[in-house]
Amino acid sequence: MIILGIDPGYAITGYGVVETSDKTHKLATVDYGAVTTLAGTYFPTRLKEIYDDISFILDKHKPDAMSIERLFFTNNQKTGIDTAEARGIILLAAVKRNVPIYEYTPLQVKSAVTGYGKAVKKQVQEMTRSLLGLKEIPKPDDTADALAIAICCAHSIRSRQ
Amino acid sequence: MIILGIDPGYAITGYGVVETSDKTHKLATVDYGAVTTLAGTYFPTRLKEIYDDISFILDKHKPDAMSIERLFFTNNQKTGIDTAEARGIILLAAVKRNVPIYEYTPLQVKSAVTGYGKAVKKQVQEMTRSLLGLKEIPKPDDTADALAIAICCAHSIRSRQ
Repeated sequence: MIILGIDPGYAITGYGVVETSDKTHKLATVDYGAVTTLAGTYFPTRLKEIYDDISFILDKHKPDAMSIERLFFTNNQKTGIDTAEARGIILLAAVKRNVPIYEYTPLQVKSAVTGYGKAVKKQVQEMTRSLLGLKEIPKPDDTADALAIAICCAHSIRSRQ
Repeated sequence: MIILGIDPGYAITGYGVVETSDKTHKLATVDYGAVTTLAGTYFPTRLKEIYDDISFILDKHKPDAMSIERLFFTNNQKTGIDTAEARGIILLAAVKRNVPIYEYTPLQVKSAVTGYGKAVKKQVQEMTRSLLGLKEIPKPDDTADALAIAICCAHSIRSRQ
C-alpha cells in the first residue's frame, strides 16, 4: 500500500510517499519534498496554494492512506491558528478523494520510528533515513518528519493486521 | 454591495448576508442561518460538509466581500484547533471564488455594532436586530454573531470610502 505522510504547516508542508509491501513489510520511498508558500503572500492565497499542491500530490500518487501529525499549541498562538487552518485544508483535500486519514502525535511517531518516545529529532531523522535506505537525511526537516509520519502509519497498520 | 458575515465553527458556522446601499448606506438583510455538522461524524467529513455548504452559500449570493471573525484561543486547545481547521476551509472556499476577505476581532465587531467595545453579547445581538430591522434576534447565537460581523464589515468599508 502507498502511504502519504504529511507534516503540516502554512510556510512549509513536508510530504513523503512510501510504499509498503504486504508480504515482506519492506518500505520503499516513492517521493518526498515540501510544499512551500511565501511569507508576505495574502494568507488565504497561501491556503489555496497548499490545497492545490496537496491535491496534485494526492492525484499523482493516489495513496491508500494519508498520515498526518496531530497539532498541539504551545508558544505562539498566531502560528498555531495559521498552522491549523493549513492542516484543515490538507484534511479537506484528502477527504474529497476518499483517502483514509490517520493521525499521530509526535510521541507516537518517535516511538514508531526509533522505538523510543523521547528520541531527539536527529535520532528520528537518522532512523528514518536508515529505514528507507536513503543516502542522506531529506531536507528540509519538515520533509524528513513527513517520511517519519508515513513510516509510523505503515507500522501502525501492520501491527493491526 | 453584498457582504457575507461568518462566525466560524466546526459544529456550527453562523452566516449572515447583508446588502448595503452605496447611496443611503442603509442595511438590508438578505439571508442568514447556520451550517451545522453532527458530533460523532468523522472530523474530515465535517470539514467537507462545511466546505460544501459555504461554497453553496457563496455561489448563491455571490457576495462582494466575506467578513469573518479572527480566532483567539483561550481555554480549550482541542476546540481551538478544530475551529481553526474549519476556518481555513471557509477561507479556501472564498479565495477560490476571488471573494475579498475581511477579518475582524470580537472587539472590532462589538465597537462597530454598538459603539462600545465592552458591550455584552446581548447588547450586540439587540443592536444587530435593530440595525437590520428584524423582529427577533436570529437564532442560534452564531447566526446573530455572523450578522454582526457582516455589519462590522459594512461600517468599516463605508468609513474607508
